[in-house]
Amino acid sequence: MGAGAGSEPRRRTASDQVHAVLLEAAQSVLDREGLANVTVRAVAREAGVAPMGVYNRFGNKEGLLLALAVRALDDLAGAVAVDGSLDAEERFRQGCVAYRDFALAHPQRYALIFGGGGPVAQTGSGASVYGHAAFEVLIELVEGLLDRESLKRYAGSAEAAQLVWTAIHGAVHLELGGIGQVSGPHDIYERLIDLLVRGLR
Amino acid sequence: MGAGAGSEPRRRTASDQVHAVLLEAAQSVLDREGLANVTVRAVAREAGVAPMGVYNRFGNKEGLLLALAVRALDDLAGAVAVDGSLDAEERFRQGCVAYRDFALAHPQRYALIFGGGGPVAQTGSGASVYGHAAFEVLIELVEGLLDRESLKRYAGSAEAAQLVWTAIHGAVHLELGGIGQVSGPHDIYERLIDLLVRGLR
Repeated sequence: MGAGAGSEPRRRTASDQVHAVLLEAAQSVLDREGLANVTVRAVAREAGVAPMGVYNRFGNKEGLLLALAVRALDDLAGAVAVDGSLDAEERFRQGCVAYRDFALAHPQRYALIFGGGGPVAQTGSGASVYGHAAFEVLIELVEGLLDRESLKRYAGSAEAAQLVWTAIHGAVHLELGGIGQVSGPHDIYERLIDLLVRGLR
Repeated sequence: MGAGAGSEPRRRTASDQVHAVLLEAAQSVLDREGLANVTVRAVAREAGVAPMGVYNRFGNKEGLLLALAVRALDDLAGAVAVDGSLDAEERFRQGCVAYRDFALAHPQRYALIFGGGGPVAQTGSGASVYGHAAFEVLIELVEGLLDRESLKRYAGSAEAAQLVWTAIHGAVHLELGGIGQVSGPHDIYERLIDLLVRGLR
């Protein structure tokens, strides 16, 4: 918005590039070694810069984790935003499947954003705002599924979306934790989506 | 089973009592200071015994955590097993509410058993077996809700119970983690139970 049609895209400055390189390094450490090992020192080593270079960009470890969480939430939102040309139920189903696929492909990123106690839990933080952007995608999928009558069951479509998030998060969290009383997490997840489609409407 | 109708209950030996005292001390440390601080040393201090007294009973810290998890799962099963004289839907609802109440009252115990990475995740361990006992209570609640026709949707009532567990665990885990995009976790949980009752059948 704001920029005229003919304007050039903003060039990435050298500063932007350093930021991106450090964040990429932090994500590599997270994916490979887990949240507990994402330290300023480890990220600096991974990127081949002095620790001060990381402090200068992100302030401290918390700032670094927040930036990582924001990026992960952004990627999750992108993953869940499925093809708009499909019918509403199919879009909802594919969005739910994409949510699980993201978590299984990036378990450390998922734990960072929704493991509890991380930067996302701090209400009002940047990550909580970005989390809302990802949530908006889910709201849209749920709105496609609900007609005016079924929508009356909820305080709003955000409430219905929260229920969906609750259920799919529970499935993914138990699966990632290796806890489950019934085998076949893929089938369980499919049955859960069926249940949500029936129960939401 | 096995003991005749007139037989006396087995007397608790002094050894049983020491075991119970140590476990109670471990649970106090867990509730007060969290899982990371449940060490053999801290539990021995809490109980006023030498660390060797804890090692002698539980082998090591893992053995201690397993015993704690087994106890917590047993308590959870007891909490969720609601009054059998209620009608099936009301029993199901009350069982789900009791599950959340347990988690909110004992967040550290809940994290121990279902936080992921704990002793319950190790399949075949004692805790996984005790976890199954708690799960049986949930299966029974779900079976009350399903008729022969709706049961056909699932590979069995255990699969349907797994879906319920998935959803209520997700709600509780997000609430305990302080993550949620819609306020009012109590109302959200009530709406989730409504959704499960509709969607299961």
